[in-house]
Amino acid sequence: MAVNIPESPLPRVVIVGAGFAGLSLARSISDKLFQVVLLDKFNYHQFQPLFYQVATAGLEPSAISFPLRKIFHGRKNVHVRIASMLEIQPEENTILTSLGALHYDYLVLAHGADTNYFGKENIRKHAMPMKSVAEALALRNKLLENFEKALTLTDPQEREALLNVVVVGAGPTGVEVSGTLAEMKKTVLPKDYPELNFQAMQIYLIEASPKVLGPMSEQASGKAKEFLEQLGVVVMTNTQVSDYDGKVVQLGNGQQLPTNTLVWAAGVRANPSKGLPASANLPNGRITVNEFNQVLGLENIFAIGDIASMSEGKWAKGHPQVAQPAIQQGALLAKNLVRIEKKQSLKAFRYKDLGSMATIGRNLAVVDLSFYKFQGFFAWLVWMFVHLMSILGVKNRLLIFINWCWNYVTYDQSLRLIMKPEEKDPPASS
Amino acid sequence: MAVNIPESPLPRVVIVGAGFAGLSLARSISDKLFQVVLLDKFNYHQFQPLFYQVATAGLEPSAISFPLRKIFHGRKNVHVRIASMLEIQPEENTILTSLGALHYDYLVLAHGADTNYFGKENIRKHAMPMKSVAEALALRNKLLENFEKALTLTDPQEREALLNVVVVGAGPTGVEVSGTLAEMKKTVLPKDYPELNFQAMQIYLIEASPKVLGPMSEQASGKAKEFLEQLGVVVMTNTQVSDYDGKVVQLGNGQQLPTNTLVWAAGVRANPSKGLPASANLPNGRITVNEFNQVLGLENIFAIGDIASMSEGKWAKGHPQVAQPAIQQGALLAKNLVRIEKKQSLKAFRYKDLGSMATIGRNLAVVDLSFYKFQGFFAWLVWMFVHLMSILGVKNRLLIFINWCWNYVTYDQSLRLIMKPEEKDPPASS
Repeated sequence: MAVNIPESPLPRVVIVGAGFAGLSLARSISDKLFQVVLLDKFNYHQFQPLFYQVATAGLEPSAISFPLRKIFHGRKNVHVRIASMLEIQPEENTILTSLGALHYDYLVLAHGADTNYFGKENIRKHAMPMKSVAEALALRNKLLENFEKALTLTDPQEREALLNVVVVGAGPTGVEVSGTLAEMKKTVLPKDYPELNFQAMQIYLIEASPKVLGPMSEQASGKAKEFLEQLGVVVMTNTQVSDYDGKVVQLGNGQQLPTNTLVWAAGVRANPSKGLPASANLPNGRITVNEFNQVLGLENIFAIGDIASMSEGKWAKGHPQVAQPAIQQGALLAKNLVRIEKKQSLKAFRYKDLGSMATIGRNLAVVDLSFYKFQGFFAWLVWMFVHLMSILGVKNRLLIFINWCWNYVTYDQSLRLIMKPEEKDPPASS
Repeated sequence: MAVNIPESPLPRVVIVGAGFAGLSLARSISDKLFQVVLLDKFNYHQFQPLFYQVATAGLEPSAISFPLRKIFHGRKNVHVRIASMLEIQPEENTILTSLGALHYDYLVLAHGADTNYFGKENIRKHAMPMKSVAEALALRNKLLENFEKALTLTDPQEREALLNVVVVGAGPTGVEVSGTLAEMKKTVLPKDYPELNFQAMQIYLIEASPKVLGPMSEQASGKAKEFLEQLGVVVMTNTQVSDYDGKVVQLGNGQQLPTNTLVWAAGVRANPSKGLPASANLPNGRITVNEFNQVLGLENIFAIGDIASMSEGKWAKGHPQVAQPAIQQGALLAKNLVRIEKKQSLKAFRYKDLGSMATIGRNLAVVDLSFYKFQGFFAWLVWMFVHLMSILGVKNRLLIFINWCWNYVTYDQSLRLIMKPEEKDPPASS
């Protein structure tokens, strides 16, 4: 079976993954020169930097999810297909997908990274990941269900385990989730559940390395930790998580933390790309590429974004797995593909590091720019402005802006809904 | 096991169901005089009149779902519990719920009605109901998945079955769903799926009775049918659906309609109330009540809303199962419960019929008021205004208003997301 794509005389570019990298390429590439097939397992692009706001009931999933078909209205040579890639067959210029075989002239791997459990099977089984809107929504449902369940219990220790949240990994996601939960603990949760004692609720942020926000400056890292502790988060650096059975987290230092909810934001691992030469696959799942994002040894296969590992100056082991390198690589590859067709020489990728930032809570953020580092209220305004401007679509931007203003004024994330699509007859009654 | 509710010297009112009736009662009842326990199986109130906009990607589920706990902030004697009622034990003044036994001084049954499949098991198994936000969301997912799947097929007949939609029941929901889908077929779908031929897509609206919008005026009914046909909906009145195997709808007249999607909005049936005296339960599941909404023969058990059947003048077989009687009964019962406590005589329910309305599409609606009936653009403005004003919460009202304006100007329902919360590791890659 072959994937059903219209015939075209143009060379076909198959892009696997519609994250920041794949979308950046698909939006910038000329569909007059190429037939573009964009594969993703969802029918929407996900704006990962705001997943934590979905998980903490501040934003609706739709506010940060953009239907791919809408993005490509009017681009008649761009074909979106909801499918997973199963295997690459470089000799045949073909990939196998969940919809069948698909021929390519150029293949671009942009299927990113997923949660890394570092081989800990128990943790994979019981922890909540944060690498998709759907996972963030599942976390929101779980947190709310915990509070509901706590109400039904009378034993204070059992209650506490339902209220406690342990977040592992102090990167931006871990910092943002734990900070926001700490704020909710002080503001909206006691109003929602006056029968529960939120003094007993503990929010832990566990980090194996010595710092929170490791790759950021000392200043940002120190301030972020200070902000988190101000909000009441128990920050434990230099601490490993060794096991979790769904009830108690075992730390490397022997300590035990009772919790029903372990949020796992401790690391990512590139998604597998079966069929590439073994020499191209790194142990962390990333794919070795040259300065044109070409997979080593393969003329017409490229990798961009989180999945690609390019050695460039101080980024000898690959660029950071965040939005900016992905977007920049996608944009450059759009131009380089044209150069290949025109038999021109390719342009090498040079990463423009625009800086990094994270928000901890209301009025609290840290920003590192190459020329200036700052923290606090102004950093928070900058964080909001940058994220708002990065959002696709004027309507989404407007709706998010209204939500943020509303939440800021009312101290009330209003989306505390345990919402699941339901097929068929629910059990009868009330 | 008993449901864990704080001790109180006040008489306890247990309300089963947080629909229009239960919520109206819970919001108006004095929690200085009563301890109120509100049970629902969801943690939010659902605004049923707009379900069809969730199903057709026009509104986000959260826009029409209101967290119950937020509604009762500061009402310290109102206790919300997420639970289903299993059985009533009138002799013990107790109900059994999914969380355990619960004692009441007054019990108010407001657990409404669910989809009625009229005993047709095949239809129950394969059709899509529309009686909860979650079901509406499941329908949205299904419609979008059909279009995606149609792209993968080459056989025109198989494609057609995926595009066709058969809506059964020409009440407001059926009319609104089929009208909106017909508009999408003309506007946004061909832009989303330029590879599909939407000329081949048929939208059928099947109704067993001779009219669409049966209970409304001849004028409204006639105009609604005309509007639907203008939009391209195939309206079939006096037509029964006899069977459906998930692929082909069998009509009573022998005709067959190939479709993957049968939307079942053909009728409702009151949810069961196990444990009431047989004499109180009507064959349609409704509960016979007197003019004070008291269940016949039981002093301290009441039924309000869709589930109650009160004989009043021209509504000898019970009031229409819509929002207005439910809201009015809830509000009156709040006062009557106080009268009972004060040993005053009760006030009988008198239904104030405020009229009815339905929308068919852009600029097209029908409105019946007692003193005036009108259709078309002005009716559509009135429909929007009334629904917007009925929505709980200023923020929701604002967000819905923006969404409506946006959709109106752009002809583009923008929520075309196949969105499901996802627990754990999705299958690897892209």
